[in-house]
Amino acid sequence: MLNFTIGPVQSSDIVCSIGAEQVPYFRTSEFSAIMKENDELVMKFAKAPEGSRVVFITGSGTASMEAAVMNCFTEQDKVIIINGGTFGNRFVEICRIHGVPFTEIKLETGKALTEEQLQPYDGCGYTGLLVNVHETSTGVLYNIDMISRFCKRNDVFFIVDAISSFLADSFNMAELGADVVIVGSQKALACPPGISIIIMNPKALERVNSIDVKSMYFNLKDALKNGERGQTPFTPAVGILRQINARLKEIEAVGGVEKEISRIADLAVDFRNKIMGMPFEIVSESMSNAVTPLYPLKTSAHDIFETLKDEYGIWVCPNGGDLKDKVFRIGHLGALTKEDNTTLVNAMKDMQKRGLL
Amino acid sequence: MLNFTIGPVQSSDIVCSIGAEQVPYFRTSEFSAIMKENDELVMKFAKAPEGSRVVFITGSGTASMEAAVMNCFTEQDKVIIINGGTFGNRFVEICRIHGVPFTEIKLETGKALTEEQLQPYDGCGYTGLLVNVHETSTGVLYNIDMISRFCKRNDVFFIVDAISSFLADSFNMAELGADVVIVGSQKALACPPGISIIIMNPKALERVNSIDVKSMYFNLKDALKNGERGQTPFTPAVGILRQINARLKEIEAVGGVEKEISRIADLAVDFRNKIMGMPFEIVSESMSNAVTPLYPLKTSAHDIFETLKDEYGIWVCPNGGDLKDKVFRIGHLGALTKEDNTTLVNAMKDMQKRGLL
Repeated sequence: MLNFTIGPVQSSDIVCSIGAEQVPYFRTSEFSAIMKENDELVMKFAKAPEGSRVVFITGSGTASMEAAVMNCFTEQDKVIIINGGTFGNRFVEICRIHGVPFTEIKLETGKALTEEQLQPYDGCGYTGLLVNVHETSTGVLYNIDMISRFCKRNDVFFIVDAISSFLADSFNMAELGADVVIVGSQKALACPPGISIIIMNPKALERVNSIDVKSMYFNLKDALKNGERGQTPFTPAVGILRQINARLKEIEAVGGVEKEISRIADLAVDFRNKIMGMPFEIVSESMSNAVTPLYPLKTSAHDIFETLKDEYGIWVCPNGGDLKDKVFRIGHLGALTKEDNTTLVNAMKDMQKRGLL
Repeated sequence: MLNFTIGPVQSSDIVCSIGAEQVPYFRTSEFSAIMKENDELVMKFAKAPEGSRVVFITGSGTASMEAAVMNCFTEQDKVIIINGGTFGNRFVEICRIHGVPFTEIKLETGKALTEEQLQPYDGCGYTGLLVNVHETSTGVLYNIDMISRFCKRNDVFFIVDAISSFLADSFNMAELGADVVIVGSQKALACPPGISIIIMNPKALERVNSIDVKSMYFNLKDALKNGERGQTPFTPAVGILRQINARLKEIEAVGGVEKEISRIADLAVDFRNKIMGMPFEIVSESMSNAVTPLYPLKTSAHDIFETLKDEYGIWVCPNGGDLKDKVFRIGHLGALTKEDNTTLVNAMKDMQKRGLL
């Protein structure tokens, strides 16, 4: 199968070969050294400021989204949530569950956030802001510089879910003043799912250390303390952490984060060029390099997903909920090439000939 | 390295070979079918009663311990915790964090629970009991039949952490009347760590569905609902779930759960015979087949761990905290043989000659 979903994506040979190895015992200095390397490279690639720290959570991206909210906000906060789809809505639900007061800025499907939508909240006493820099469900990349300026001028604690954007779009945690950044193992990191990552700047560390979180598994203070010696409080997904280590070093060896971002950007441009004139609309006002969201003009998006899977051996990424029949998405993350793009486009052209598109 | 720890343990060839494969996209009927098979085989091996359900959590065993407590108990409960070591203590901490009223029965290191210790709690209005059937830190397997009788006669909701005991010791969820059973991927299941499993009987399902849990990631109602169609609310550790599938089928193909338990029991007996006369004491009053806890008479347990690792290429399982220098453990789980036992015993005999044991 050729995998154009947004995760799990295709892994490199080295990542797969580590998957075949026995998983080592991990309460050792050898494993601690791997974790320390992971910390350093993740912070380097995110351009985290001096004094930042990283925690690896064995869990889905949602685990880290919830952990971040639980460890950084309380009932005393008042946060803004940019809600442009499934993942914005997830932050809304998390704040609701944990009693964190919030206001949501709800966006229509495919729409970018504008300066005008943010301005009314200037000077209103908000203490935090939650955004999925790339709303993966609709393929909208927000203007993170604009949001950063809002947070800076209002002195707002700034949590960025960069799960599907990290390593795919330019990102500078230090310059943006992002306090917390969340990353997943199965997007552009192109490792198996099972690990999510929370990067915290010094301001975030202070906040985390001052809040008494009602959770054992999501106690970031505890994770940070264990992390000082390259360990985790509980048995982590050791195999995936070793795969992440190999992958981070692989990216570094072939030119670093900018090189990986431009490789993914090239793939996205190539694909977008190749589908010109086909019966799709791209509704997203602002796309990430990670994903091209396609609105088929004549057919159900979900039927296209099923046909490509069953008849062409290709996975594209379906949507759920209201968007199920309207939108499907093409991911540009992981071990893909321009030849793979051609294979996909040819399959879609064949479907078009058959009247299935 | 030869791995005698208690997890991660050595995996079979088929589990390793799946680790080398690309991780497939999972919002598909194909992956749902795998999850349904996993459900059925886990319930079969645990001897779960009719109408039980299974949830796979992407997370450590602790994640499922906490999820079970959060979804099954509230501040209205009054629970007994059998606390014989690190993992008993973990249940104590989880109840403390979540405000679940509890009484702990604290046991000395290596001691089994007695009928006399339980009796004072008869008829005292307890609503729940939490036990780690095998307290992994000290290698004590509790008398689960005795605990089961207590729970039945007091109509107490019965949660069993069987993480290190499942597939290693006989267990019959239906007969014991265990309401919730917790399992990990990296013990006798011998897959990479990253998944834990919660099995619930109909009484547990009722309880879970009646409690409003303050968590998104650990919302078992939501997991159960998604599980009806073989799916999970969030991206799970798809690769490990596929490995679990292959491993469960492998166990089934070579004779089922009883065969696997007796294989592990044989390995444990073989090892225990081979170390007779060596300078170790076994303090556990009641051992699981999973682990042999060794108290070296002359040397630091942690030094033995380090020497075996660095000079013999063998991992045994060290302890933390107060037991660090006192106890180390030999696991009998995973892809090990009697020849491997001989290799380990020969290494220890060599250390003895060198005055290191």
